Amino acid sequence: MPLTPSWVASANAPDHPFPLNNLPYGVFSTSDTDPRCGVAIGEMILDMAAAEETGLISLIDDPLFDVPYWNDLMEEGPAVWAALRERLTALLAEGAAERDKVEPLLVPMADAELHLPFVVSEYTDFYAGRHHATNVGTMFRGPENALPPNWLHIPIGYNGRASSVVVDGTPIRRPWGQLKSPQHDLPAFLPCRRFDLELEMGAIVGTASDGPITVQEADDNIFGYVLLNDWSARDIQAWEYQPLGPFQAKATATSISPWIVTKAALDPFRCDTPEREFELLDHLKDCGPMLYDIDLTVTLAPEGKDPTTIAQTNYREMYYSAAQQLAHHTTAGSPMNVGDLLGSGTISGAEKHERGSLLELSWGGKEPITLDTGEVRSFLEDGDTLTLGGHAQGDGYRIGFGQCGGQVLPAMEDPYKR
Amino acid sequence: MPLTPSWVASANAPDHPFPLNNLPYGVFSTSDTDPRCGVAIGEMILDMAAAEETGLISLIDDPLFDVPYWNDLMEEGPAVWAALRERLTALLAEGAAERDKVEPLLVPMADAELHLPFVVSEYTDFYAGRHHATNVGTMFRGPENALPPNWLHIPIGYNGRASSVVVDGTPIRRPWGQLKSPQHDLPAFLPCRRFDLELEMGAIVGTASDGPITVQEADDNIFGYVLLNDWSARDIQAWEYQPLGPFQAKATATSISPWIVTKAALDPFRCDTPEREFELLDHLKDCGPMLYDIDLTVTLAPEGKDPTTIAQTNYREMYYSAAQQLAHHTTAGSPMNVGDLLGSGTISGAEKHERGSLLELSWGGKEPITLDTGEVRSFLEDGDTLTLGGHAQGDGYRIGFGQCGGQVLPAMEDPYKR
Repeated sequence: MPLTPSWVASANAPDHPFPLNNLPYGVFSTSDTDPRCGVAIGEMILDMAAAEETGLISLIDDPLFDVPYWNDLMEEGPAVWAALRERLTALLAEGAAERDKVEPLLVPMADAELHLPFVVSEYTDFYAGRHHATNVGTMFRGPENALPPNWLHIPIGYNGRASSVVVDGTPIRRPWGQLKSPQHDLPAFLPCRRFDLELEMGAIVGTASDGPITVQEADDNIFGYVLLNDWSARDIQAWEYQPLGPFQAKATATSISPWIVTKAALDPFRCDTPEREFELLDHLKDCGPMLYDIDLTVTLAPEGKDPTTIAQTNYREMYYSAAQQLAHHTTAGSPMNVGDLLGSGTISGAEKHERGSLLELSWGGKEPITLDTGEVRSFLEDGDTLTLGGHAQGDGYRIGFGQCGGQVLPAMEDPYKR
Repeated sequence: MPLTPSWVASANAPDHPFPLNNLPYGVFSTSDTDPRCGVAIGEMILDMAAAEETGLISLIDDPLFDVPYWNDLMEEGPAVWAALRERLTALLAEGAAERDKVEPLLVPMADAELHLPFVVSEYTDFYAGRHHATNVGTMFRGPENALPPNWLHIPIGYNGRASSVVVDGTPIRRPWGQLKSPQHDLPAFLPCRRFDLELEMGAIVGTASDGPITVQEADDNIFGYVLLNDWSARDIQAWEYQPLGPFQAKATATSISPWIVTKAALDPFRCDTPEREFELLDHLKDCGPMLYDIDLTVTLAPEGKDPTTIAQTNYREMYYSAAQQLAHHTTAGSPMNVGDLLGSGTISGAEKHERGSLLELSWGGKEPITLDTGEVRSFLEDGDTLTLGGHAQGDGYRIGFGQCGGQVLPAMEDPYKR
């Protein structure tokens, strides 16, 4: 499928993240307006609350867009999702009859502040990238026992903390936590020393379910995708995670990109999961291409310095699709709700430069990486700005995600000395 | 503190769970009314929406009670919580001047259906009972390694699934899940064979926080307590929980009792945590009595049979208070919100009959228990009704919680054969 040209000229540049083929959904405010729904097209944002108020977009009787989240639209279901995409495409395509009415409702992206695009209902994080799990397992348990016995049979996941999800640009304060160094007998309460990123994709549940659903139903229920950075305190995790999993190590923040890229926009980029070592049981079996070919990058910029690309990989490296993860999430009967966010797990490729965390890139700190600026890094340092980027490459156009970044701020003074 | 008599005569019986000293908060409906806030007093429920509408209760300008949750009241903060308790006590005490106006607003509990008393924002479950952790650890790792090295230094916890929280009386369907028996090489997808209860208390966050808080602040932020049963699929857990903790094993349901017993009502029953083997670090140190002396029971009734009390213990057996758990929850910076629910972890005493799970009572199935009806149980069987009860014993009165029960329904037909 080629580029669909828009009368918004900036959207037609072949490397622009937001052509008419994309139409991602976000929440924006300006000096004049409160946070509300908007759609990115080139360098502009279509004010959806205004488009609804003027009657240009009218999907159901009730208003959907004069709110700071896309959950209401998701609740309306796939037929309304499709109708909206069709209407937006008609309004913004080259030669659109209603261009004169739409043009006044466009806000320059440069004038807008972006917010979280949806209310995160609950947040789950998975561990479903084989290269990542193998790397981490090799470091901690040796190459023979790298993958836990269950890993090739179920997408391992754990529940995270929805209240910690923030949007691109939010500064991330280095956490304190209880740690124990191998050379000490007792733990201490200290600022994290091994603060890390995890490069992930996030899938957003758009249709609720109550009870077990199939992989196909799960794929149908997903509304769209974002970039996701699961900020991770490795030293806190090492001390706390046995026996019940990570808790405070993953509680500081999870950053997501500000634009929900819909499943419809990504449809041309569907691809298969990798070959299976063990055939999956029926409830998890692939029933079509449900991963996506999305190029991903991580850059790290020390304070006041230029960024270095420290990792490049692709979402197709995952062993399990988001649909398989969502299906697994429902097997024991848990209801899933609109706005639930599922992190893919860290995405790493086979090569060293394709690793999606500093834990892997610096091999647990034993092989620090050197940035283009000459600095070396084992883990994140105060002032570092970490940014994820991603896009699917089409024929003369891209489906971009915007960016997912944040600067690491120094730990607060001891929070209990006050 | 003795019983404070009420003009609602049923509230004055010495063993009644809901005397004037208690005043627990729930949500009820009748054949005539939608779910709304109510306060239990003896065998009656005070219709709070009606009390507000008639002007008998007027705490702030906006209405608080004509909704099916107590979150709005919690949002108003401790001064309003105290004002409400004072006003309710004045209206319902023996000799109250406004008795004639209040009496028409009382609904017999027998005519009411009870609902979840608050919107569960996020749900966290801890593992903070020493006898339980020692029992489980001994079964799985031997008595020398029963407690993980971190256990005596931090309250181990994991995030659970808020969408799975249900109220007393909700039937619980035995889940399916991926399991692997020791004698098989590969896993299978089957109905759970080792379905269990966990006897816990739940603490409800009533005041939000953003960043690390002290144990004293955490205690201040707790609104009240409920009984909680963390239904657990032991065979699903055994296969899935390494390395990132329980996931689908805890996703089927978590039941809570329908009445929020406030911190104010429990205040006379505060008690200390047990002696410490290691001094806790400053951020977790006890700063006052923050556990409660609450007698707890578990009964099991096979279908159509009388219940047998299978466990009796007390909330004071916990090693960590809910305030310590909440403080720990905030150390890495995670925001906590009104309506967050924290499960204490399974409460077991030192003696065999004080164990709060069938895993412990039947020692992993090796020592099945015999019920008063003659049946034996290692884990829950279809049709069993499991009920938690609890109360604090005062001087001639009780602060009761109501009950927290549910019947185990047979697993559905294979959810993927349809």
